[in-house]
Amino acid sequence: MTSALIGLDWGSTRLRAYRFDEQGQVVESRTLPHGVRRLPEGGFLKAFALAVDGWPSLPVIACGMVGSRNGWLEVPYLDTPVAVDRLAAALTPLVAGGHIIHIVPGLRDASRPDVMRGEETQVAGVLAQSPASARESRLLLPGTHSKWVSVRDGAVTSFATVMTGELYGLLRDDSALSTSQSEQADDPQAFHRGVVAARESGGAGMLSRVFSARTLVLNGALAPSSVADYLSGLLIGEELRMALAAGWVKLGDMVQMVGEDALCARYLRAAEVFGLALGTAPQDTTARGLWRIAREAALVSHPTTT
Amino acid sequence: MTSALIGLDWGSTRLRAYRFDEQGQVVESRTLPHGVRRLPEGGFLKAFALAVDGWPSLPVIACGMVGSRNGWLEVPYLDTPVAVDRLAAALTPLVAGGHIIHIVPGLRDASRPDVMRGEETQVAGVLAQSPASARESRLLLPGTHSKWVSVRDGAVTSFATVMTGELYGLLRDDSALSTSQSEQADDPQAFHRGVVAARESGGAGMLSRVFSARTLVLNGALAPSSVADYLSGLLIGEELRMALAAGWVKLGDMVQMVGEDALCARYLRAAEVFGLALGTAPQDTTARGLWRIAREAALVSHPTTT
Repeated sequence: MTSALIGLDWGSTRLRAYRFDEQGQVVESRTLPHGVRRLPEGGFLKAFALAVDGWPSLPVIACGMVGSRNGWLEVPYLDTPVAVDRLAAALTPLVAGGHIIHIVPGLRDASRPDVMRGEETQVAGVLAQSPASARESRLLLPGTHSKWVSVRDGAVTSFATVMTGELYGLLRDDSALSTSQSEQADDPQAFHRGVVAARESGGAGMLSRVFSARTLVLNGALAPSSVADYLSGLLIGEELRMALAAGWVKLGDMVQMVGEDALCARYLRAAEVFGLALGTAPQDTTARGLWRIAREAALVSHPTTT
Repeated sequence: MTSALIGLDWGSTRLRAYRFDEQGQVVESRTLPHGVRRLPEGGFLKAFALAVDGWPSLPVIACGMVGSRNGWLEVPYLDTPVAVDRLAAALTPLVAGGHIIHIVPGLRDASRPDVMRGEETQVAGVLAQSPASARESRLLLPGTHSKWVSVRDGAVTSFATVMTGELYGLLRDDSALSTSQSEQADDPQAFHRGVVAARESGGAGMLSRVFSARTLVLNGALAPSSVADYLSGLLIGEELRMALAAGWVKLGDMVQMVGEDALCARYLRAAEVFGLALGTAPQDTTARGLWRIAREAALVSHPTTT
């Protein structure tokens, strides 16, 4: 079987490379620590060469921070509402080392304003696999910067970013709440307690309670080793509370979630506390999205129905 | 005029020492960088010796983190509601280097739970100077960990901590919102814009908007040099929004603020956006509080009416 496409998911901290066969199946993938903020000596070109080393010369498509202002080539955003199938027509070619790298544009929701780079390709991947989602859906991509995305009639209509994961890391490691001396133990009960505290904070919000991650320890009511799980619950709980309060989602909606298994499991447990229905979307959505966009852009010579 | 008392305001990062005359006036004060987390070689005793070097042997009273678990001697909290004049009876003596250091206990609001160490002395100082405040008042002590304190009939009835200043530092310096390359310029308009964004976030809260500190820059709608002021407005605005939503204060209340002038000025501007009445309390409240408590504890041999 012949290879047909190379796809790059090139973020801030990581570069992931996929080699696709003609059916759109990933036959090999590699992960390098060379995100756009962690380039090797030799810069972007060197990182790219390492990622595709030994692979045949193929069309290349790339998404993520590689197209940002601090990336290899700044590619303008597409403004919402935007049909996902417009991504293919908006690829920007970059000629580098004898290759043409086709960079997927990010999206901008000018009403907030808000932006994404990379997640638009995940959305394309989800919709490629689920026609029902393309008609109308709400997607949640949890992570360092969680994204809440509304989709209707194949278009991203609006979205919002919440810095949940980043805030969690800052509070856990670098704040007065940090218990860096203590090894952290898994404590699902502490997580649940954090989620409940966030829900009960009501319109005031979790920031009015976050200092409790310290005072509960001082009070002997929370083990130092459980602070991380409690904080995780507080922050994920706050994200859900906020999404409901801001109207990004309402009770009764089904939200499809795309992310790492362990993180999605936390969101599922938190969503139960709020009575919110969360489902997990298919895996490998970035690879699916890259393939879909490349096919629509006719980068792949023998389109399939995958 | 003879000296009568040494007062120590001993926090996490700083040690401030006051020498009082018999009228309770501060005749000399010193500030050392030796908070309980930044002790010199020789530890607490050495820091103390440096602070009082050359001063006569006098009764010593101390408040702040010096009485915490990581302080010189852990002094139990008094639980709210607690009459401020009970602090004097609850001093804990520490014998060190030929001195007796009388440590003021912190307060605990077990209902949240929440704690303070040092601020109780500021509250005592405010109430000593204002009988009206002692009857009923709301105090705001803005800072790294802002405190909202409710007072009735000379007692602290409840209080809450908000990590506004700490969160501001983390987001400004260590997050994806950081614009460390850009020198920050004073931009009152960006501050105001941040306050308004926090107010308009409604029940969802400022965390739903905080990523805008980045996207507004990407959009060319906010100068990188103004990000710090915008963030400052978002966070102080969120603190006020939250205080109103949580019922710590309501429109029409007069809130007395105790803190550094520049920070208080920011809170005053933000409070205007919310239609909230903030007034500034007298200065030197910690020194006033230390003197009051020492006098009530009869550490000072010739009580005055100050």
